Amino acid sequence: MSNESDVSIEPAEPVGSDLRIRPAGAEDWPLIWPFFARIVEAGQTYAYPLDLTEETGRGWWMEEAPARTVVAVRGDTVLGSAKMGPNRPGRGAHIGTASFMVSPEHTGRGVGRALGRHIVDQCRADGYHGIQFNAVVETNHAAVALWLSLGFQIMATIPEAFNHRERGLVGLHVMYQKL
Amino acid sequence: MSNESDVSIEPAEPVGSDLRIRPAGAEDWPLIWPFFARIVEAGQTYAYPLDLTEETGRGWWMEEAPARTVVAVRGDTVLGSAKMGPNRPGRGAHIGTASFMVSPEHTGRGVGRALGRHIVDQCRADGYHGIQFNAVVETNHAAVALWLSLGFQIMATIPEAFNHRERGLVGLHVMYQKL
Repeated sequence: MSNESDVSIEPAEPVGSDLRIRPAGAEDWPLIWPFFARIVEAGQTYAYPLDLTEETGRGWWMEEAPARTVVAVRGDTVLGSAKMGPNRPGRGAHIGTASFMVSPEHTGRGVGRALGRHIVDQCRADGYHGIQFNAVVETNHAAVALWLSLGFQIMATIPEAFNHRERGLVGLHVMYQKL
Repeated sequence: MSNESDVSIEPAEPVGSDLRIRPAGAEDWPLIWPFFARIVEAGQTYAYPLDLTEETGRGWWMEEAPARTVVAVRGDTVLGSAKMGPNRPGRGAHIGTASFMVSPEHTGRGVGRALGRHIVDQCRADGYHGIQFNAVVETNHAAVALWLSLGFQIMATIPEAFNHRERGLVGLHVMYQKL
């Protein structure tokens, strides 16, 4: 494992026509926050605190080394964002974890897939032995299908572990891929 | 769920002869830290940061409401400690999680079992729908056997997810019990 090093793969990775994935800087947060807040508020995909402010949201999303936060951009427009880093500290830090969000205005155009691929490639480049997702909402079919197509397996489903805003209690998948 | 209430079950619960489990106060931390540090240093059971100090360790162990930290005591001697609380914030906060440690000088005398029972009873009293353990080291046979005997199931084992100090990479169980 070398996740304390600074192996940054393709910092301006071209994906699709003019979509690029690059490290997120402090100046990107005000452009992430609007869709971050909207997605958390929708209550369908993330178990984050319900009383997030722009400032506390920043702490949940904008990672520090060895973890990373990236943005998917087209020109000056931030279409989505992802974060990745060690799933646990210390003796569990060789397994990575990650999250991603795509702005609801820009879904269905491959942004999520580009971020997903980037996560897998970056975690591999950083030397993680595997990637674990601790809480993929089972009704989030787009995310589940994306991760399955990128090589992840559903290891278990914790029943009724997520309080979906519309569907009530639904399961959370634990997903994993060895790198 | 009512984990923001203050349902404290049997704050001075009698277990065994003169073993009691009670809420941990700030004054207990200096008595927890010696075995906490020893157990983390042993590298067999917990994925905590490797550079813990007494002060940062306090932040990892001494919980604030709605979570709880308790100690198992006999007279003035702290034999072990446990913590419990929501496994996730927001839309995942109705599932509890917990950890416990028994001082290596006092193992094998039912302290772990008493703490385990207390965890299940307290989480039930607090209104959690279930209890999830995210990372039970598969070679920690005493803990695995205890949780199985208290009604938990192994939902999945993430392979090689824990870097055991003596055995190298071993699996981490995700365990769960509906309450």
